[in-house]
Amino acid sequence: MLDPHRTLTELRELQARTADRHGAQRVAYTAPWHAARGYLRAQLEDLPVTVSTDPAGNLWVTLPGESRQELWIGGHLDSVPNGGWLDGCLNVFAGLAVLRRLSHQYAGRPPVTVRLVDWADEEGRFGHSLYGSSALSGQLAPDRAGRLTDRDGVSMRAALQESGIDLDRALEAGGARQHAAAYLELHIEQGPVLERQGLPLGVVLGTCGVERHRITVTGRAAHAGSTPMDARQDALLVLGRLSQEIYAMTERHGGVSTIGSVTTAPGIPTSVVETCEFTLDQRHLDPAGLAALWTEAQAHLARSCEEGGCTLTVSELFRIGPVPFHPDLIAAGEQAILDVTPGATRLPSGPLHDAAQVALAGIPTGMLFVQSLGGLSHNAAEDTGEADLLLSVRALDRLTDRAVAWITGDQATPPAR
Amino acid sequence: MLDPHRTLTELRELQARTADRHGAQRVAYTAPWHAARGYLRAQLEDLPVTVSTDPAGNLWVTLPGESRQELWIGGHLDSVPNGGWLDGCLNVFAGLAVLRRLSHQYAGRPPVTVRLVDWADEEGRFGHSLYGSSALSGQLAPDRAGRLTDRDGVSMRAALQESGIDLDRALEAGGARQHAAAYLELHIEQGPVLERQGLPLGVVLGTCGVERHRITVTGRAAHAGSTPMDARQDALLVLGRLSQEIYAMTERHGGVSTIGSVTTAPGIPTSVVETCEFTLDQRHLDPAGLAALWTEAQAHLARSCEEGGCTLTVSELFRIGPVPFHPDLIAAGEQAILDVTPGATRLPSGPLHDAAQVALAGIPTGMLFVQSLGGLSHNAAEDTGEADLLLSVRALDRLTDRAVAWITGDQATPPAR
Repeated sequence: MLDPHRTLTELRELQARTADRHGAQRVAYTAPWHAARGYLRAQLEDLPVTVSTDPAGNLWVTLPGESRQELWIGGHLDSVPNGGWLDGCLNVFAGLAVLRRLSHQYAGRPPVTVRLVDWADEEGRFGHSLYGSSALSGQLAPDRAGRLTDRDGVSMRAALQESGIDLDRALEAGGARQHAAAYLELHIEQGPVLERQGLPLGVVLGTCGVERHRITVTGRAAHAGSTPMDARQDALLVLGRLSQEIYAMTERHGGVSTIGSVTTAPGIPTSVVETCEFTLDQRHLDPAGLAALWTEAQAHLARSCEEGGCTLTVSELFRIGPVPFHPDLIAAGEQAILDVTPGATRLPSGPLHDAAQVALAGIPTGMLFVQSLGGLSHNAAEDTGEADLLLSVRALDRLTDRAVAWITGDQATPPAR
Repeated sequence: MLDPHRTLTELRELQARTADRHGAQRVAYTAPWHAARGYLRAQLEDLPVTVSTDPAGNLWVTLPGESRQELWIGGHLDSVPNGGWLDGCLNVFAGLAVLRRLSHQYAGRPPVTVRLVDWADEEGRFGHSLYGSSALSGQLAPDRAGRLTDRDGVSMRAALQESGIDLDRALEAGGARQHAAAYLELHIEQGPVLERQGLPLGVVLGTCGVERHRITVTGRAAHAGSTPMDARQDALLVLGRLSQEIYAMTERHGGVSTIGSVTTAPGIPTSVVETCEFTLDQRHLDPAGLAALWTEAQAHLARSCEEGGCTLTVSELFRIGPVPFHPDLIAAGEQAILDVTPGATRLPSGPLHDAAQVALAGIPTGMLFVQSLGGLSHNAAEDTGEADLLLSVRALDRLTDRAVAWITGDQATPPAR
């Protein structure tokens, strides 16, 4: 019997053990994170599972099945500093509830092997998001990653070592890929879309591609009092125009664009802005849409700089292509949601998730989102209604059965409702 | 005989003595500033003048005349750190050239008493611009000013004390006002207007009033990837709109508006801007125009914040009303320019000058601008063509004669050319 209420109890207990009044403190490799893993292990004692850690530091709970084909269910116990109580760990404890139900229903031996994975350092304590799953997928570059440091100056390599992980062997985690038949993940949405649609759950189409750039516009410093408006080379004006243009571009192409950080020089009240430096983050589920957003932003900036007598410098901060999830598992996810609630929707994920790394590794991937209240995440106010949390565990459970059937060939495509 | 070439020689010598490769270093009360005053004193030795320092630290060179009525010519030897070679000291040495010519022409006794004043700390080493002239005008508040510190933490009171000036007696400098009949100042424009009009010289209508505010727009932080554009409360968008609106406002009302400094929070690439803080500096020669600029900026911001789901906080940084110069001396200035070159223009001064303080004290004031190359000032690149510098000394000389005639009543209004 699936027991979603127990999942809520476990999540609350986890919170009591690993959060303070500022929020969750399960930052990867710290004492609260180890405590979270200890708590997870303690909940496994009555189950016929094996527990292991791979060379990257990901934790695997394996329930062996009739087939060596493996269905994975993933999440992450780590949090950002002052994080929320659901981000990442809902996935883990919901997966555990499904594991328990399967073990009970099949007397400890389900049709396929089922593995629950707790990915290491999803949040990117050292600035490298999706560390553990990128080691599995082979996207991790250990040399470069090893030089990263957290905000206290601790290096990634040293922190891993202290937790018994050798970064130079992290890519060996990829060996686990050979038996993987499918990967499932449940996550809070971390955005307002489901809440605005009045839906508890949605199925994720994939993760958006990201184009992230640092843009520097250089005009000319000039006295605020003595320089007529039509004689200015005002770098801020170029930013101001783009800040509106990104909204118009979304009207044309979809996706999202964000100017997140702005600095100005000389940065005094009495001078026209000479240098305006800012970041532009653009995301789209469709590669052509993403390319259109970035191309149009560049064209707009070039035009705007020319008109305003400014020069433009662009440097890439980060880019990743869109990662679509598996169409069969998207359909299965939708059906699983409709198994437990009357409405479902399909939506892209703007934020990246471990599911994207797994999908990049060629493993068929499906993902569910549950509504986030107020779209809030990465802070102590993060929350989801209790009824929706219970539904999300049920939907993941239903998706698991549909995925097992899909893997074993009982269902070439997911059954209609 | 007026000798403008000597003025250039003196300015170059001053530069050699008080600048380094980063520019002029005549910051008030420092050794280079004292050296500049020492150099000025040395140039006075052959003149029948008295030299004194008033209680605020302003230096006065007095050429007694037939009448006790006084004509003042002013400038300032102090500079910003890494400043230009003309800002403030052109005025002093041009005034000295005029003093020499008068002394020679009238055998040491011109029709009115002529005083050359070197104002102390015009540039505001401690953040208080026009210190010396504001002491004379009575606008200085010694208690408040005394608490100001420079960028190295040195207090204004202590720095003055070290130069033998008692801040608590600074307002006694105002006693000099009683015999003042007119004040003249020549200054580099520090802007591009004369250069764009192809004119070496212009007469200044007055100094613009200033409304300077710090504006904080607060929206809502939200994930750059998961938050649709139409669900954002983007504080940066409000700034972006205003950055364009200030140009449109100028089209309607004249004057200038500048957004000079911007900071954003949380200030990371992956979050919509929650808080955008910026400065808005607005200037206009006409009080109604200035009021219109600030009123419209507030209305625009309020509307923009409401549309964008943001809130608005405004705090005043600085304000001063417009200071018009004396119409007779504006007309005299224009005629004096036309005495030496075929074209003249009238223009407001966006930057403040000591002349504004003198005018605020009720002393009839006239001011000339000479072209600045590229509109540059407050850095080592500040420059003016040699021919224009020579013309500016000649124009100040012509204006002096016209002002003397106006004071003595030989001319109720300045003579036509």
